Amino acid sequence: MAPQLEPYFKKVDELADSFIDRLRKAVAIPSVSADDDKRKDVVRMGQFLASELEALGAEVQQRPLGKQPGKEHLDLPPVVIARYGNDKNKRTILVYGHYDVQPALLEDGWATEPFELTIDDKDRMYGRGSTDDKGPVLGWLNAIEAHQKAGVEFPVNLLCCFEGMEEYGSEGLDDFINAEAKKFFKDADAVCISDNYWLGTEKPCLTYGLRGCNYYSVSISGPGQDLHSGVFGGTAHEPMTDLVNVLSKLVDSKGKILIPGINEMVAPLTEEEKALYGPIAYTTENLYESLGSKAAIFDDKERILMARWRYPSLSIHGVEGAFSAGGAKTVIPAKVIGKFSIRTVPDMDSAKVNEAVYKYVKEEFAKLGSKNKLDIYCQHDGKWWVASPKHWNFTAASKAVKEVFGVEPDMTREGGSIPVTITFEQATGKNVLLLPMGSSTDAAHSINEKLDRRNYIEGIKLLGAYLHYVAEEPIVEA
Amino acid sequence: MAPQLEPYFKKVDELADSFIDRLRKAVAIPSVSADDDKRKDVVRMGQFLASELEALGAEVQQRPLGKQPGKEHLDLPPVVIARYGNDKNKRTILVYGHYDVQPALLEDGWATEPFELTIDDKDRMYGRGSTDDKGPVLGWLNAIEAHQKAGVEFPVNLLCCFEGMEEYGSEGLDDFINAEAKKFFKDADAVCISDNYWLGTEKPCLTYGLRGCNYYSVSISGPGQDLHSGVFGGTAHEPMTDLVNVLSKLVDSKGKILIPGINEMVAPLTEEEKALYGPIAYTTENLYESLGSKAAIFDDKERILMARWRYPSLSIHGVEGAFSAGGAKTVIPAKVIGKFSIRTVPDMDSAKVNEAVYKYVKEEFAKLGSKNKLDIYCQHDGKWWVASPKHWNFTAASKAVKEVFGVEPDMTREGGSIPVTITFEQATGKNVLLLPMGSSTDAAHSINEKLDRRNYIEGIKLLGAYLHYVAEEPIVEA
Repeated sequence: MAPQLEPYFKKVDELADSFIDRLRKAVAIPSVSADDDKRKDVVRMGQFLASELEALGAEVQQRPLGKQPGKEHLDLPPVVIARYGNDKNKRTILVYGHYDVQPALLEDGWATEPFELTIDDKDRMYGRGSTDDKGPVLGWLNAIEAHQKAGVEFPVNLLCCFEGMEEYGSEGLDDFINAEAKKFFKDADAVCISDNYWLGTEKPCLTYGLRGCNYYSVSISGPGQDLHSGVFGGTAHEPMTDLVNVLSKLVDSKGKILIPGINEMVAPLTEEEKALYGPIAYTTENLYESLGSKAAIFDDKERILMARWRYPSLSIHGVEGAFSAGGAKTVIPAKVIGKFSIRTVPDMDSAKVNEAVYKYVKEEFAKLGSKNKLDIYCQHDGKWWVASPKHWNFTAASKAVKEVFGVEPDMTREGGSIPVTITFEQATGKNVLLLPMGSSTDAAHSINEKLDRRNYIEGIKLLGAYLHYVAEEPIVEA
Repeated sequence: MAPQLEPYFKKVDELADSFIDRLRKAVAIPSVSADDDKRKDVVRMGQFLASELEALGAEVQQRPLGKQPGKEHLDLPPVVIARYGNDKNKRTILVYGHYDVQPALLEDGWATEPFELTIDDKDRMYGRGSTDDKGPVLGWLNAIEAHQKAGVEFPVNLLCCFEGMEEYGSEGLDDFINAEAKKFFKDADAVCISDNYWLGTEKPCLTYGLRGCNYYSVSISGPGQDLHSGVFGGTAHEPMTDLVNVLSKLVDSKGKILIPGINEMVAPLTEEEKALYGPIAYTTENLYESLGSKAAIFDDKERILMARWRYPSLSIHGVEGAFSAGGAKTVIPAKVIGKFSIRTVPDMDSAKVNEAVYKYVKEEFAKLGSKNKLDIYCQHDGKWWVASPKHWNFTAASKAVKEVFGVEPDMTREGGSIPVTITFEQATGKNVLLLPMGSSTDAAHSINEKLDRRNYIEGIKLLGAYLHYVAEEPIVEA
């Protein structure tokens, strides 16, 4: 029997402005986890969440994670965990989100103040963290509030796990989840994570797969200190020359990874899998729009989606230690650290990927005949993940999408990594669903990050509806 | 007849502490010309110099240079020009130096506060600008003061030209020098610039040649904004991938420039020139010491000196627009600008060098088959310079070195560029001498820049002695 959701939906619409106001307050807290100076703001954001949850009647704890590895003067921000409802006759759903954000500075090119929610005439709500991931996190709180104010019984027991270090590798979280899997999280029947995006801008999706990410630093050093290029140019092996040579050997301009052994680890494409890509609502134009350019490698939908979801990619992010400002500085940097990462897919094994990368980078460096020193290491890795999209957790979400948006969701994978997904799956042994709120044009991690009003408000309805459907879904493990 | 310099030298020794105090005051002014926020400090440094010169009885002017090109909200710092003495029976020597400095932050790795002169137990005086170029500039002022206090007649008329934008391309200075060549500077009989370094740490040198410098920006852009590498990795042509490919084609790890046509422009090595390198006091160990490492390309003295003085070199300085901080950011930068420069030598023509660079970079980029956009341009260029080391200006300096240090100076060239040298030569039509004060280990442009007390104090004696010898040198144009 379909749940009666009308009173809840109506209340969400009535409370829309106050929900936007809640998001405005959250965006105003610059909880940048990568910035030591902003750690206090990350902590403040956790406190804000905890207070809001408590005001809604949840049982809340802020759990410390100890000192930050490598930065022992800094405490990691606490994990905010909460329980709302404790009825043995109801299912218990564990939801995850993060309350930290990527760095953002107005001078990076933002059109508006990044930590001030600014709504334009198309109801696009700009601000760092609006879509990644403060909007979705507050979505759960808003769903609780709308149930209360509509007088509709909350359909499940909700467990929350909101962390403050997601944008900096989720330091300390895995151990915490593993430790709590049989304690605070022990009642969980399924897990839902809202921290990704629709494939396009119109049609919601449910996500059953993610790429992993192995992030590397390759450091090359030689001189004892930075040198003047006039005085020393031509007489010293320059670390930057060596670094660009090594980096240029990793991937070609068309995205082909040149490291032997990497592409060989990829699971072959079956006819069954190939058939999945055709029906998905996506066009080359969608890609151009989200790229903000036509500099796309492929021009047909299926190859684009496969490149994003089921093949590895290698991106070079930048160089630490070299001259990076505007203008003209004639320095020979003494030590430079190239940063690159590989997005991993089934059946790549992280340790074997590392081994292939280390071997190749060392060989390519050796070919240069340089007297500089090379060091290559993996800063962090997160495994790829694929779940069964036929589990009742997905079926419930699919019905909720149909109810709120009137369409069947696309069943998608994601190119990005949400390492916590696999941690939850392994620690709880339960199915994990990714249920996105934002759309493909939200520019998470970029300038002018935004969340559309429609995605936020209908997304709150979706999260609530999902909890109703999941409460009554028969248990048929797929 | 050798000048009687004893009373002058004795007075310099007596005043040493006060001369160091003058340097301390100058170093304390963070006159970083590349930093907009420090422009007021550059101006303050110019005022400090002007006041000190006026107190010594010089006629001083602070001459405006207008707005900074490309940064029209900023006034260029003034050129401080001065005349000390106006005796028609004396020679007139024009001296140049600069009162601005390179950027410096304690967190760059300085062992001491960069803008606080700190003297260690080996009498090394650490501080930004100590050797480049505040020590030498104050050397001229100190020479005047010591003459006055010793009651020794100043042997020449001295014209000073001290600029505040040398570390940022000497914006506006060429036009000023050209305009004043037949006005304020019209009496100059010769020019002396103290803004370079000894080849080693023990033996002074006179410098008769400099390499030039063509500085390039190569910009590659594609996406409309920075992208998330998980979402877009594998589907977009990444500007950073293209950039490292292009940069890797410029020069090999052993310093060989790979751009066709560049090496072909270099004047061939004659037997006569080759013979000059043997006698020079320099060892591979000297290079290791100043590099702070053994990552040297060549292991014999002559090839090292030729690589520094008479062959071009290409250095890659860094990348603007990519991720450059510590940690791990999974960004695909939308626009990256690689910075590199070529040190030029006789007989390279700047316009032809640019032409060869542009052609090659565009060709190499085209080979990549990328849909991104490339732009390459020369940010600034400065011509190489070679003077006659047999001119009376050099003979006088050579005698002064013998008098102060008891040795014949090495006759050297320099790898670095001091573009103003050639401007003075062309504008005044007079011989230009480079008479360095600091030593090869002074780390100009690096962290822990210093000037040895010995180099400063004996250097003041040297500048004064040079003026005495130049006053009585017969005019035999070489």
